[in-house]
Amino acid sequence: MNVAIVGATGYGGLQLVNLLRNNSNFKITFLGGNKSSGFKWNELFPFIKIKNDLYIENISTQLILEKSDIAILSLPNGLSSTITPKLISKGIKVIDLSADYRYRSLDKWKEVYNKEASIYKRKDYELCTKSVYGIPEIFQNEIKSSKIIACPGCYPTSSLIPLIPFLSQGIMENEGIIIDSKSGLSGGGKVPQEHLLFSEAGEGISAYGLVNHRHTSEIEQILGFVSGASIQLQFTPHLVPVVRGMFTTIYGRLKDPGLTSDDCKILLDNYYRDFNNIKILPVGTYPSSKWVKNTNDIYISVKVDNRNGRIILLSTIDNLLKGQAGQAIQNLNLLSGRKMNDNLNFTTFYP
Amino acid sequence: MNVAIVGATGYGGLQLVNLLRNNSNFKITFLGGNKSSGFKWNELFPFIKIKNDLYIENISTQLILEKSDIAILSLPNGLSSTITPKLISKGIKVIDLSADYRYRSLDKWKEVYNKEASIYKRKDYELCTKSVYGIPEIFQNEIKSSKIIACPGCYPTSSLIPLIPFLSQGIMENEGIIIDSKSGLSGGGKVPQEHLLFSEAGEGISAYGLVNHRHTSEIEQILGFVSGASIQLQFTPHLVPVVRGMFTTIYGRLKDPGLTSDDCKILLDNYYRDFNNIKILPVGTYPSSKWVKNTNDIYISVKVDNRNGRIILLSTIDNLLKGQAGQAIQNLNLLSGRKMNDNLNFTTFYP
Amino acid sequence: MNVAIVGATGYGGLQLVNLLRNNSNFKITFLGGNKSSGFKWNELFPFIKIKNDLYIENISTQLILEKSDIAILSLPNGLSSTITPKLISKGIKVIDLSADYRYRSLDKWKEVYNKEASIYKRKDYELCTKSVYGIPEIFQNEIKSSKIIACPGCYPTSSLIPLIPFLSQGIMENEGIIIDSKSGLSGGGKVPQEHLLFSEAGEGISAYGLVNHRHTSEIEQILGFVSGASIQLQFTPHLVPVVRGMFTTIYGRLKDPGLTSDDCKILLDNYYRDFNNIKILPVGTYPSSKWVKNTNDIYISVKVDNRNGRIILLSTIDNLLKGQAGQAIQNLNLLSGRKMNDNLNFTTFYP
Amino acid sequence: MNVAIVGATGYGGLQLVNLLRNNSNFKITFLGGNKSSGFKWNELFPFIKIKNDLYIENISTQLILEKSDIAILSLPNGLSSTITPKLISKGIKVIDLSADYRYRSLDKWKEVYNKEASIYKRKDYELCTKSVYGIPEIFQNEIKSSKIIACPGCYPTSSLIPLIPFLSQGIMENEGIIIDSKSGLSGGGKVPQEHLLFSEAGEGISAYGLVNHRHTSEIEQILGFVSGASIQLQFTPHLVPVVRGMFTTIYGRLKDPGLTSDDCKILLDNYYRDFNNIKILPVGTYPSSKWVKNTNDIYISVKVDNRNGRIILLSTIDNLLKGQAGQAIQNLNLLSGRKMNDNLNFTTFYP
Repeated sequence: MNVAIVGATGYGGLQLVNLLRNNSNFKITFLGGNKSSGFKWNELFPFIKIKNDLYIENISTQLILEKSDIAILSLPNGLSSTITPKLISKGIKVIDLSADYRYRSLDKWKEVYNKEASIYKRKDYELCTKSVYGIPEIFQNEIKSSKIIACPGCYPTSSLIPLIPFLSQGIMENEGIIIDSKSGLSGGGKVPQEHLLFSEAGEGISAYGLVNHRHTSEIEQILGFVSGASIQLQFTPHLVPVVRGMFTTIYGRLKDPGLTSDDCKILLDNYYRDFNNIKILPVGTYPSSKWVKNTNDIYISVKVDNRNGRIILLSTIDNLLKGQAGQAIQNLNLLSGRKMNDNLNFTTFYP
Repeated sequence: MNVAIVGATGYGGLQLVNLLRNNSNFKITFLGGNKSSGFKWNELFPFIKIKNDLYIENISTQLILEKSDIAILSLPNGLSSTITPKLISKGIKVIDLSADYRYRSLDKWKEVYNKEASIYKRKDYELCTKSVYGIPEIFQNEIKSSKIIACPGCYPTSSLIPLIPFLSQGIMENEGIIIDSKSGLSGGGKVPQEHLLFSEAGEGISAYGLVNHRHTSEIEQILGFVSGASIQLQFTPHLVPVVRGMFTTIYGRLKDPGLTSDDCKILLDNYYRDFNNIKILPVGTYPSSKWVKNTNDIYISVKVDNRNGRIILLSTIDNLLKGQAGQAIQNLNLLSGRKMNDNLNFTTFYP
Repeated sequence: MNVAIVGATGYGGLQLVNLLRNNSNFKITFLGGNKSSGFKWNELFPFIKIKNDLYIENISTQLILEKSDIAILSLPNGLSSTITPKLISKGIKVIDLSADYRYRSLDKWKEVYNKEASIYKRKDYELCTKSVYGIPEIFQNEIKSSKIIACPGCYPTSSLIPLIPFLSQGIMENEGIIIDSKSGLSGGGKVPQEHLLFSEAGEGISAYGLVNHRHTSEIEQILGFVSGASIQLQFTPHLVPVVRGMFTTIYGRLKDPGLTSDDCKILLDNYYRDFNNIKILPVGTYPSSKWVKNTNDIYISVKVDNRNGRIILLSTIDNLLKGQAGQAIQNLNLLSGRKMNDNLNFTTFYP
Repeated sequence: MNVAIVGATGYGGLQLVNLLRNNSNFKITFLGGNKSSGFKWNELFPFIKIKNDLYIENISTQLILEKSDIAILSLPNGLSSTITPKLISKGIKVIDLSADYRYRSLDKWKEVYNKEASIYKRKDYELCTKSVYGIPEIFQNEIKSSKIIACPGCYPTSSLIPLIPFLSQGIMENEGIIIDSKSGLSGGGKVPQEHLLFSEAGEGISAYGLVNHRHTSEIEQILGFVSGASIQLQFTPHLVPVVRGMFTTIYGRLKDPGLTSDDCKILLDNYYRDFNNIKILPVGTYPSSKWVKNTNDIYISVKVDNRNGRIILLSTIDNLLKGQAGQAIQNLNLLSGRKMNDNLNFTTFYP
């Protein structure tokens, strides 16, 4: 199967190339990147060589159509919507890492991504309704038969996987959920920005996007969908000085305050028993983001405060893999009829 | 005024020596540390030289009494209680950085610090009731006239200063408060432990002490005291790879959901208008822990989610200064009749 | 082939387990570690699970003999020599990661490792003369037929691979070689020590072991062997705040000052053309230690100062893989009749 | 004395503002910065507030002349030469942090800074010959009476201070000197560039500018001047993941191989006995860059290999203080008739 990677030279693209270059089920046939076009890949990235070296090319719908069966887009928000409808209409399946197709309602997207909406005058309302939200462990059936997959953001991935079992089954109260998330710097991408400099971010801890971060509405949409209720929650992202890693701490309240940590652990075990990349930890064992670095795994730990029925969920992922490119490959596997975790077990290293 | 620093070679002690060595109001007359006793200070710490070099001595009540008017104890929990009563009874004032005198009720201490309680068979019930909790901006009058000050932990300091204005004035609901705190590694001290190694902590984000961390009860006690109600809250500490720095994110609910971020900002301004080391940021400006590194300041930012009356408070301190030794010097200033922030303005550097 | 990993819970041991747990050519049959004995491996290391969980056992020659064909020892210097002769005499092959068998002359070892020599009264002179120094790209023939392999230290590995082509062929002067090496903290191991703490090592750069570091003599021995001359050089190790990574800068002088950077690059290409894990970079491309993280590769770059015939060599390795456990597995492959780089190509990730 | 800081919003400028805002001997009267002009300083830098808040203004010779007695320029190379001659001709003294006036010979500058020379068509040959190289501990008399001071680069500062005593007195051989320097990331400045990102630089060690780095010729010029001979040396800069800090390791050969480490230590003590910010360490004590962080000090350690008369010098500085802005303030002090280290003793903190 021939795969186009569009936006190949950012951190998302680099991971995709890296994951596919030794995967014999797929062949990289197009590498798109406007700024680096004309260079050979192996010249720019001598430490991530591909066997059949390719030129990086300008992003061209025509070239993608000629060379590929499926396209993975790792483009800035808004830009994706300028090529996706064309690709879909010509029979190319699209896995999109941007936010452009994460909302069923294009109007909602225009409200949340209003800056991008003022630049890109989108009218692809219908395509938005057909897009499937790409958490493969939750929506695998829908994914298999879709033409377009919207991969979730890293924060939503780390938040939704622990929360969905509780909200979809009515075990946790819908109200008062708090998500406090800590991210490494690579989530900010490879385009140089002052706040991403080592000198600025090193030895610093900070928060941003309080109340209004765009991922708040993304998480609320999916939780609303699985719970059948309208959800309002607090989501606060933080930056901490690690390169790769995301750690999310979630606070909620159990409907039945008599449930114990062990009960909740078993509930998670059962819900995700078919997915060996979702690892539920023993009660009292708390993960480090180092455990998942360079893997497509998510570790989850749960603890209940039996004084008051409060529940705390911890989750940790590699923001560039399960939080981005690794999850895209899971979706690619499903779209091409394979098992979702094919070729996603890596030898990883500690510390 | 002659000051004994007892437990001088840990990170707390190092800060105390550093803060006092150039402070002409005080003279360091005793440096206690059992493991390093017999060494000259300047030999061990050539980069923190004191003018009149001293030998580090074994911790001896007798020597402290002979040489000092006041003792600052930076000792492990439990150990402090073995010398404090003697010092007090001989007329030496004590500023204690351990948890030994933070609880009014010794029985509560024995419950929370049960391991230490099994080693140190304490009976100093009365002394506990006389101890003052050393947040100088809140309890300065009590501190001035006390013989013993229990300096708060770093997590409680960063949590209580933002919360007290809201809880003492009945503006925030008592129920459902969540404190999610991120600490640098120096909070773990200088005694080598595996989880504090660079190789273990570097490039990692983790949580510990869920539900049961000892500082939960410390925070609950003080919030209960200022609010006049019984408080149960969630406190979750995290470790992130910075040397110095603490960042605390607090979630609560306003009783009056019509209050805005600006209202809450003004409330904080007013409450702390006399304290120039407490810096309330403009609405929408969020601090980095780098801003307070090597200072005794605390930055606070507040944001309200007007959809539902939820309030988010951010605070950041240097865990070893405002979170520990700097606050101890504020208390030392008050105990000796000075202004609390005397000699606590340092030239700091960014980045 | 059944393999014992002796000293399994340090960083060296962890890497060995990790490298072998998915390697179908070998089976881990014994995990030795005195401090952790009695625990099941998967309990202690839930993030490095092995399929057939094993108990960690006390280090016992008898048990190793019963269960294994080959033993890899990751033990403190000196301790290795207490069990290696027994294992060898019973027909077990040994790959030793300590310094105990790196010197042909046991007397030299006693001089350099004099502290250890005063504890362990070694008499295994003959075994020392039979040991092969385990750089597989240089000594593969000797390794294949040896019963005992002494794996090099990380600093010597990163120094010798770039230097040997020049010294063995008489292209560089023997006199005046300077090796300035920068290491990540994991090289210091997992046993807690103050200077390895995050708070001590973070945001710091330092040097140690000037002139007398033990690896100086190890490097001098091997360079003396390949050049046929007596070599005296300067080796200075530094610690920099990365977890994994080693970067070595080597300065020397060409005998023929007319040689260019390109000439030297070609010389390296030719010397190592059979080894795809030794990567010679184009002139003017300088590696980062990040490029080799979690790989068994070494990158080398060479530059000549044509004003004066001075040559600079850069090399970078992962100190725990090519610098330690990865190289051990190369030796294990050779000892068991396989290609040296079998099962040592990992999917790695950037950044 | 009224001081203009031109280029105030880079890291050099930030340090200058920070150092002068509490220094009662000087008054900041102009803050220049084209990109931030129109903003009030305290708005942009709420964590480095100045008492009399100023607007940042476009860089205008006229405004500087009106408001200031002396100008400190922290501008890109080349740009400085467009305003310095005008300022000097109007009687304003200039302390320049760029490389524009570091070379006596403008032709040499044009050769080394050929890119800048092609943009800025300089003809200020005479001004170059009048400029004094601003290492205050070496050239204080010349500095006091000069109108223009060229502050050294950070690498040259850390290299020259240890080397000058040996080369100016003919104790070390001129030939074969090697300088291996390791720098923190803040040396690269605050303008976003890919290689300075946390994700790129974190967990990485790398070298750059082999043989040809511009500071090589700067160091060679000054060493040639003090030794009276032509010097060719190797200088290799490295980047390591710390925010602030520079550690330089220097290798040379003693003319008299009988000199010991102690002899050389005493020689350094004597040479710098009048300068308490130059700290010569006991033989066998090696500094960490953490010791000098946030200070204007330099620590030096020396070790001789008595096998062969090789000498190793270690030095460490804060690259933004002694390596840049702190040294500028020393020069400012001298230019205004003060002691060079006035107001440069800061309370610093460890770890």
